[in-house]
Amino acid sequence: MQILPLFFISCLLLSSSSSSHAAVQDFCVGDLTAPQGPAGYSCKNPSTVTVNDFVYSALGIAGNTSNLIKAAVTPAFAAQFPGVNGLGISSARIDLAPGGVVPFHTHPGGSEILIVLQGTITAGFVSSANTVYFKTLKVADIMVFPQGLLHFQVNAGNTVATAFVSFSSSSPGLQLLDYALFGNNLPTELIAATTFLDSAQIKKLKAVLGGTG
Amino acid sequence: MQILPLFFISCLLLSSSSSSHAAVQDFCVGDLTAPQGPAGYSCKNPSTVTVNDFVYSALGIAGNTSNLIKAAVTPAFAAQFPGVNGLGISSARIDLAPGGVVPFHTHPGGSEILIVLQGTITAGFVSSANTVYFKTLKVADIMVFPQGLLHFQVNAGNTVATAFVSFSSSSPGLQLLDYALFGNNLPTELIAATTFLDSAQIKKLKAVLGGTG
Amino acid sequence: MQILPLFFISCLLLSSSSSSHAAVQDFCVGDLTAPQGPAGYSCKNPSTVTVNDFVYSALGIAGNTSNLIKAAVTPAFAAQFPGVNGLGISSARIDLAPGGVVPFHTHPGGSEILIVLQGTITAGFVSSANTVYFKTLKVADIMVFPQGLLHFQVNAGNTVATAFVSFSSSSPGLQLLDYALFGNNLPTELIAATTFLDSAQIKKLKAVLGGTG
Amino acid sequence: MQILPLFFISCLLLSSSSSSHAAVQDFCVGDLTAPQGPAGYSCKNPSTVTVNDFVYSALGIAGNTSNLIKAAVTPAFAAQFPGVNGLGISSARIDLAPGGVVPFHTHPGGSEILIVLQGTITAGFVSSANTVYFKTLKVADIMVFPQGLLHFQVNAGNTVATAFVSFSSSSPGLQLLDYALFGNNLPTELIAATTFLDSAQIKKLKAVLGGTG
Amino acid sequence: MQILPLFFISCLLLSSSSSSHAAVQDFCVGDLTAPQGPAGYSCKNPSTVTVNDFVYSALGIAGNTSNLIKAAVTPAFAAQFPGVNGLGISSARIDLAPGGVVPFHTHPGGSEILIVLQGTITAGFVSSANTVYFKTLKVADIMVFPQGLLHFQVNAGNTVATAFVSFSSSSPGLQLLDYALFGNNLPTELIAATTFLDSAQIKKLKAVLGGTG
Amino acid sequence: MQILPLFFISCLLLSSSSSSHAAVQDFCVGDLTAPQGPAGYSCKNPSTVTVNDFVYSALGIAGNTSNLIKAAVTPAFAAQFPGVNGLGISSARIDLAPGGVVPFHTHPGGSEILIVLQGTITAGFVSSANTVYFKTLKVADIMVFPQGLLHFQVNAGNTVATAFVSFSSSSPGLQLLDYALFGNNLPTELIAATTFLDSAQIKKLKAVLGGTG
Repeated sequence: MQILPLFFISCLLLSSSSSSHAAVQDFCVGDLTAPQGPAGYSCKNPSTVTVNDFVYSALGIAGNTSNLIKAAVTPAFAAQFPGVNGLGISSARIDLAPGGVVPFHTHPGGSEILIVLQGTITAGFVSSANTVYFKTLKVADIMVFPQGLLHFQVNAGNTVATAFVSFSSSSPGLQLLDYALFGNNLPTELIAATTFLDSAQIKKLKAVLGGTG
Repeated sequence: MQILPLFFISCLLLSSSSSSHAAVQDFCVGDLTAPQGPAGYSCKNPSTVTVNDFVYSALGIAGNTSNLIKAAVTPAFAAQFPGVNGLGISSARIDLAPGGVVPFHTHPGGSEILIVLQGTITAGFVSSANTVYFKTLKVADIMVFPQGLLHFQVNAGNTVATAFVSFSSSSPGLQLLDYALFGNNLPTELIAATTFLDSAQIKKLKAVLGGTG
Repeated sequence: MQILPLFFISCLLLSSSSSSHAAVQDFCVGDLTAPQGPAGYSCKNPSTVTVNDFVYSALGIAGNTSNLIKAAVTPAFAAQFPGVNGLGISSARIDLAPGGVVPFHTHPGGSEILIVLQGTITAGFVSSANTVYFKTLKVADIMVFPQGLLHFQVNAGNTVATAFVSFSSSSPGLQLLDYALFGNNLPTELIAATTFLDSAQIKKLKAVLGGTG
Repeated sequence: MQILPLFFISCLLLSSSSSSHAAVQDFCVGDLTAPQGPAGYSCKNPSTVTVNDFVYSALGIAGNTSNLIKAAVTPAFAAQFPGVNGLGISSARIDLAPGGVVPFHTHPGGSEILIVLQGTITAGFVSSANTVYFKTLKVADIMVFPQGLLHFQVNAGNTVATAFVSFSSSSPGLQLLDYALFGNNLPTELIAATTFLDSAQIKKLKAVLGGTG
Repeated sequence: MQILPLFFISCLLLSSSSSSHAAVQDFCVGDLTAPQGPAGYSCKNPSTVTVNDFVYSALGIAGNTSNLIKAAVTPAFAAQFPGVNGLGISSARIDLAPGGVVPFHTHPGGSEILIVLQGTITAGFVSSANTVYFKTLKVADIMVFPQGLLHFQVNAGNTVATAFVSFSSSSPGLQLLDYALFGNNLPTELIAATTFLDSAQIKKLKAVLGGTG
Repeated sequence: MQILPLFFISCLLLSSSSSSHAAVQDFCVGDLTAPQGPAGYSCKNPSTVTVNDFVYSALGIAGNTSNLIKAAVTPAFAAQFPGVNGLGISSARIDLAPGGVVPFHTHPGGSEILIVLQGTITAGFVSSANTVYFKTLKVADIMVFPQGLLHFQVNAGNTVATAFVSFSSSSPGLQLLDYALFGNNLPTELIAATTFLDSAQIKKLKAVLGGTG
C-alpha cells in the first residue's frame, strides 16, 4: 500500500538528517531540557514516547494541608505533566481541610472548570464589571471560571473537601493574590499606594508570607 | 473615581443604543436561541447572567448504562452548559458498568483529559503514525488524549467505573466510530469499499445500531 | 478586467440575498446593537462604514483625576471604539495627577504595552512565580505587561504624568483589584477568608469604594 | 444506547428553545443573510444543510480572460462558497491567457498554496526584508506564498495556463495593488507622495483602471 | 533613507549575537534537524532560504497505486515540504486507479479542500451528528471536509482519477481507520470490545494490514 | 503552605534536568541566539530575566529624517525588544519632518493602532474592496489599520510630526511598497508586467532606491 511506504520514506528522510526529530505533530510531549518557545516546550523525540508520557498519577496523593490555608493545589501542568504540552489542556487537584481555603488567585493563561469530588465548596469569581458570582457547590457540581479573573474556593463544610480542575491551556499559570502582594520584595509603601491597604496590614501579612521590603 | 464613571458612561452609551448587548467580554454565556457563528453561540445579555449560568449539576446523576455498551457519556458542552461558550473548555461524565465500553471515537474539536473517579479503566489512543498508547488506569490517574485521534475507554474491573473528562474546547464534538459507520444511511457497499469490512459484518452491526442502506 | 466584475457579481449575489451583510472581512466594525459572540461584536454593514469608524478622538481629553486615586483611565476598547472590533488591538489613555496611582489591576484578555508621554511613572507587574518587575519610566520609555498579570502605574514625579497604552485584544477587560474586592457585595467574612485581610481593613475600604455586605 | 438518547435530549432542548439553531459545531455553513462577526458568517441551520453546501462547481468554468490582464481569478471564498465558513480554508481558480498576468497583490488574511494545472507560470513574492523569491513553475509544481506578502503570477508560455490555489482562511481577502492605487478616488497628489510615482504615470493608470481624483 | 539603515542595524545586532537566526517572521521554513515545538519546526536561517524552499515538485509524480487500495496519497506537509511550516497550509496528491479507494480516515489537525483533476470521485464525510454527506464529483468540482471528521474518496469511474487537496494546517496529520485498527499491535479482543467487530473479521484484516496481537 | 513547596519542587525537578529552562510561561523573553519557531523566538532563561527585559528606551530618540522620505520608522518588534516575544504586541515610533511621508506599506502579521503625539498627520488605508479610508489626524487622535492592508502616513503640517504605533503581533513585519518593487533585483520587465508601470518609471525609482535588474 503506497500510503505506508510514503510515510516510511518521509521518516527515513527525517532520520537521515536527524535521528532525534520526527514529523509527528499529533502531540508534542515536552522535553523540559530543550529550549521552550511561546507555544510551549520543544517536543520529545516521538520514537522515545510511551503511554507513560500521557498518564500522570501524582494527583492520586492528597496534597499536604498542614499549612496556613489548610489547603493544597497540586498542579499537572506541562512542567509537571509534559504530555499535555501543546495540547491546550492541563489539570490540578485541590485539597481543602476543614476551614481550608484556596485564596483569591488568577490563571493568566486559561479558563478553569472545577468538579467537586468530596465535601462542599463555596467557589466564586469576580468579573471585570466587578460583579461577584459565587455559590456553594456539592459533590459532582461543576463550575467554570473565565480566563484571568480573580476567583477562590473555600471548604464550606466540616469535612475534607476535594476538587479536580482542568484548564484550557497546558500552562495556565497561577497567580496567588496574597503571594503576589505579600510574598516578595515589593516595598510596603508601593503596595500601600497601589492597594490602599494600611501599612500595618501589609507588614502583618508580609511577616506571614515571607515578604520583605 | 474616574475609572468607574467611565465604565458607567460606556455602559450608558451601550444601553442607549441597545438594552440587550453590554460590553463585557470576560465571558459569553451562550444564548441558544440566537445565531451562532464559527466561534460559538451568541452571548446572553450579561445583565441577565447569574452564577447559575456558570454552574452545572447534571453530571451528578449517573448515566443510564442499561444499553448495548453498558456505558454512558453525559456531556457538559456549550449546548448543555452554555456558561462554557467561548471559554475553550468543557466537560463530560463517563459511566461504565462492569463490561462497559466507550467504543472507539474522536473529538474533532479538542484534546481531552480524563481522571478516573471510581474503578479501573483501560484507556488508549492511536496516533497518526498508527502507534497504540494504552494503559489500565486506577482511581485518580489522569490521561490525556490528543485532539482528533481515535481513542477508547473500557471498564477493566468487575465493579462500576466512573470518569470525569474535560476538553480544550467548549464544543469538542463526539464522533463515535460505530455510529458514524453503522448508525446512518451510508450504503453497505460504500462502507465495505472504504473499510474493507465484509458486507455481512456491516449488515450485522447496522441491524444493531439502526443503520439503513 | 475580469477580477473586478467577478467581485461585483459576488457582491450582487450577496445583495440579492441580503442588503445588509457584505463579504468584506478585512475588518468588522462593531455594531453595538447587534448580537455579540465569543469573537466580538457583529459587523456593521460595510457599505455604511466610513473613515470615522477607524478614528477615535476621545483620548485627546484628559481624564478627570479629581478622585481618590488622582488618576483616570480612558479606554478605547471595542465598546468605545467599535473600529477595533475583531482586529486584536485596542488602546487607552492614562492620566496621573501628582500622587496619582492606577492601582493593582489585570487585563484578563490581553497583554499591554505602555509609553510615557509626560512626566515619570513607576510601573511594575508580578509574575506567576511571584517575582516583581518594576521600574521608574521617563518620557518615551515603553514597558510591556504580560497578559493577565497584576500590574500598576504610579506617578513618580511632582507633575502631571500621562501615558498611552495599547492591548493585544480589542476587548482586554480591566479588573481593578480594589474594586473586585471592595466595590461590590462580596461578604466581608468571605473576603477575609480568601485574602487574610483583617475585617476592619476590609470594612474601611468597602466604605471608601462603595462595597456592601 | 445512552449516548444516542443523550444527544436526542440535547437536541430537543435546543429545539424547544429554538427551531433554527442546533448544537453541531463540526461546521458552520455561512448564512449570508444573517449577521457576521469577526470569525465569519453566522451558521446556517444544520438541519437544512446538505452535501451541496460542501460542494462547489463554479471553478469548472474558465474565467473570462478577455480583459486588460488577460487573466481571471475566480474565488471560492466563504462569500461564494459558504461551506468553508469557519473552517480556515478556501480556494480560487486562476486563468491566464498567453501574456496573462495576475498583477502584484496580497491576501491580508491568509497564506496561499498554488498548483499549476496547465501551462507554465512564473510566480513570485517579496519578503518584508525585500528579498524576491520567484521561479517558473511547470504543471504540478506547487508554491506557497506567506500571508500578507506581495506576490504575482505570470503566464510564462505561449499557451493558456491554469492554476488552482488554496488559502489558510475562509476569507483571505484579495488586495490588487493597481486597483488599490489607481482604481478608486485616492487623490493623485497623495498617491504621488506615498509612492514616488510621477503624476503622469498615476493619471495614465487611473484612466485605465477607472480611478478618479 | 532611515528605514533601511534601521533594519540593517537590527540585523547587525542580531548577527553580532548570532549568525544563524535572523528576525524575519514572514515565514519559517522548517529546519527538520532542529528542535520542533507545538507550533511546528524551528526556522531555517533566513539567509540560506531560497525560492526552492517554497516550491515542491514531488506532486508531479503519480503515486504507486499497485497496492491493496489501488490508491496513493502523496503528502506535501511540513515534513516533506518545509516551506509551509508555520503558514497554516499544506497539500497532497491523491491517485486512484479504477476501483481505487482512499479508505475512511481523518486529519486531526486541519480541514481539507479537494479538487478533482481527472476522472470522477465519490467523496463523503460523516458529522458528529452521524449525518452522512457524500456526492460524486466531476473534474473541477471542489469539496470541503471539516477538521477531524471521518471521510473517504472512491474512484467512481472506470478510468484513473486524480485529486489535489489542501489543508488548513502545515501538519494536518492523517489517521487511516483501517491502519489505526488493524495495522498495529492493538490486541484483537480489545479491538472487538471497542468496535463490536467479530474477532474473525478483525484477524482477517490484521492479516492483510500487518497487525499483530 | 503547600502551594509554595509544590512550586519549589517543580522548579527543582526542572533544575535537575536543566539549569537553563524553567516552567514560567507568563512571558517568553526572546533569546535571539537560540532557535526560533513559527510562534517566535525561544525563551530566555527566566532566572536571568530582569525588568530591563520588559522596558525599551530607544523610542525616545527621534529617527533620522534626513532622507528621501523625510521620515523614519523606529521599530520595537521582538527582534529589537525581545520582551514582547510571544505576547502578541509590539510598537514603533514614526518621525515625520515637514514634507515627510511613510510611503504605502503593509504589516503582513498584525493590525496597527496609531496615536499622533505631535503635529498633524494624514493617514489612510485601502480595503480589499478598494475603498479608501483616509483622514487628517490631530494630536491625540488614534486610528486603526486592519492587518495586511496597504496604508500610509503623511505629515499634513509645516512642523515636525511624531506618532507612536502599536501592533497586534510581536513581529508584525513591514513591507514597504517602493522597496518591495524597486529596492531589490526583481527584473524591470517583470515589474512592468505585474504593475503596468512604464519601464522608464521603474528604472527611475530603481535608481533612487538601489534596485537592480
